[in-house]
Amino acid sequence: MLDFAEQPHKRKNLLTGEYILVSPHRSKRPWQGQVEDLAPDNRPQYDPKCYLCPGNTRADGTQNPDYKDSFVFVNDFSALLEETSIEQFDEEHLLVAESERGICKVISFSPRHDLTLPQMDLPAIKAVVDLWQKEFRELSAKEWIRYIQIFENKGSIMGCSNPHPHGQIWAESSLPVEIEKESAQQKAYFKQHGRTLLKDYVALELKKDERIIIDNEHFVALVPFWAAWPYETMIISKRPVPSILAFTEEEKEDFARTLQELTIRYDNIFKTSFPYSAGMHQSPVNSGDHPEWHWHMHFYPPLLRSATIKKFMVGYEMLATPQRDITPEQAANTLKEQSTIHYKG
Amino acid sequence: MLDFAEQPHKRKNLLTGEYILVSPHRSKRPWQGQVEDLAPDNRPQYDPKCYLCPGNTRADGTQNPDYKDSFVFVNDFSALLEETSIEQFDEEHLLVAESERGICKVISFSPRHDLTLPQMDLPAIKAVVDLWQKEFRELSAKEWIRYIQIFENKGSIMGCSNPHPHGQIWAESSLPVEIEKESAQQKAYFKQHGRTLLKDYVALELKKDERIIIDNEHFVALVPFWAAWPYETMIISKRPVPSILAFTEEEKEDFARTLQELTIRYDNIFKTSFPYSAGMHQSPVNSGDHPEWHWHMHFYPPLLRSATIKKFMVGYEMLATPQRDITPEQAANTLKEQSTIHYKG
Ligand SMILES: O=P(O)(O)O[C@H]1O[C@H](CO)[C@@H](O)[C@H](O)[C@H]1O
Ligand SMILES: O=P(O)(O)O[C@H]1O[C@H](CO)[C@@H](O)[C@H](O)[C@H]1O
Repeated sequence: MLDFAEQPHKRKNLLTGEYILVSPHRSKRPWQGQVEDLAPDNRPQYDPKCYLCPGNTRADGTQNPDYKDSFVFVNDFSALLEETSIEQFDEEHLLVAESERGICKVISFSPRHDLTLPQMDLPAIKAVVDLWQKEFRELSAKEWIRYIQIFENKGSIMGCSNPHPHGQIWAESSLPVEIEKESAQQKAYFKQHGRTLLKDYVALELKKDERIIIDNEHFVALVPFWAAWPYETMIISKRPVPSILAFTEEEKEDFARTLQELTIRYDNIFKTSFPYSAGMHQSPVNSGDHPEWHWHMHFYPPLLRSATIKKFMVGYEMLATPQRDITPEQAANTLKEQSTIHYKG
Repeated sequence: MLDFAEQPHKRKNLLTGEYILVSPHRSKRPWQGQVEDLAPDNRPQYDPKCYLCPGNTRADGTQNPDYKDSFVFVNDFSALLEETSIEQFDEEHLLVAESERGICKVISFSPRHDLTLPQMDLPAIKAVVDLWQKEFRELSAKEWIRYIQIFENKGSIMGCSNPHPHGQIWAESSLPVEIEKESAQQKAYFKQHGRTLLKDYVALELKKDERIIIDNEHFVALVPFWAAWPYETMIISKRPVPSILAFTEEEKEDFARTLQELTIRYDNIFKTSFPYSAGMHQSPVNSGDHPEWHWHMHFYPPLLRSATIKKFMVGYEMLATPQRDITPEQAANTLKEQSTIHYKG
């Protein structure tokens, strides 16, 4: 019998088909490596130099409106551009490239410079969810767009260059690498079983109740069996819907509640603003029906031992297989033990 | 015609079959995000508290020998253990796992605590190459081992917890994720063409001469067409050999020379000890012949703008597709312009 808490082992990620390596005994190792600086935690409600605060002027000279809840605009330094023409390049099948068309947007979650998602109240988080849904609807109305990536980088350790609470949306003309993988796995499962992969997975996780953190009417939040990052989690809708477009009012409220509770639990682990990259994975758009696609949201937080010591996904992880030290079950227990009231009160 | 220097585009990684995204115009973006601390650069030749220095006592009480060139031992905090029994786990094909057996070794490159690979002289680097070959031979003599990952994490920014120059070797009972991908791509190419993928790729890169940094009798070092990290490079043997086991004396000398020159060029870019994770990708062992496998070494360095500003592979990159700002051709030019004499003289 494989002892998950003691034996080094590999676990299969159902969504990518790829494995991760778990070394449960390894967390005993002492740490003498890099320790991160803690970001200062005394931001003003309004910062005259912030390009996201209401009324301020951005890099291109535009003035932000005096917005009251959330606010969205095209990124002044977009990685993808709408005016790109579609071109192919192929030299002996060895140098293969194609241009990529896209739109990159920035979405401010709140006019308040000093808040983060877990510190916002429920109506404010619900307003962000509404805006995500609206953006998804409007972007998918553009025929050339195939995929819409909604995400947030939280914390300077995750490359976030402005502490004002905000996320991003990158919409583009072809499917990203991770979406290709998840599409293939979900399609194969749906073909064989006539149900979505995540519907069956969630049912089994609820039955076992070893990795579930939040279970409400419309959503679960759990540490996936195959989590690679120490406190990696997923939010999964109980109803198999392909995208946020299908969310009802009730589901949007429940999703906002789930987001709030999960991120509060995160902050409480190390009594710090818990950094992460998080984002929804959703069905491709403008490419027919995708009954196999089941909406979900990934959270990839880097911290391992404390507010300042992260897991390094380096050498072996980059060249071979992602590796983790604590088990997903230990991480789930830690998250379950946390209060649902933010440590800052 | 696709304009690589101006248009956002995707490039195909021949070894994994996956794409990366290039946003050439995006490097103009100002940076207000995290800046790394520079590691102090005044280490003593010998540090009594270092577990790698000659004569010192390690965590488990063992005393290091008074070694003169390089030195190898089993990691005191191994992620993989030799005594693991092989067990399978499968619940409804939804929770899938298996135990993994392995050996993790640490290899000190030099008795000198204050050096790094680019500061070592050629005979010392050649001694490391000899030891890598010897270790690969001895580990592959263990029948249960399928794959041997030789790598180095350099710099605290890459999770390296001891500045004493050293690398690692993880040998294990199954194939890592990245090796599965590279095996599949190389096998498909070899089947179709009867030549290794990298032989044809190197021939084309030499003809074009746009991304080649070093070209000597037995090796090339280049920025691959599909590089994801800003200054990512590969060293590729000109002769299609499956592993370091096949290297002749002459090839080992040339490899040591290539390593030295490439890492000196790296250090010279930002006049800093250039951090990276680097490692060889080689044929699986104890599993028949692998004529499709062509030995190569990847370098994944994180720095982008300066000695203290790295590229963050976060949000979009983790959830969708790895993304880069400067083009591989710009990176190759910067590397080519560097002196082959170390900036510290
Ligand atoms: O073994 P080390 O150097 O202490 O640890 C480092 O390299 C390992 C292998 O890439 C990683 O798993 C660790 O996260 C990293 O900190
Ligand atoms: O757009 P930002 O927040 O300035 O930049 C951040 O997020 C992007 C999308 O994940 C990454 O490509 C950048 O490396 C990161 O610094």
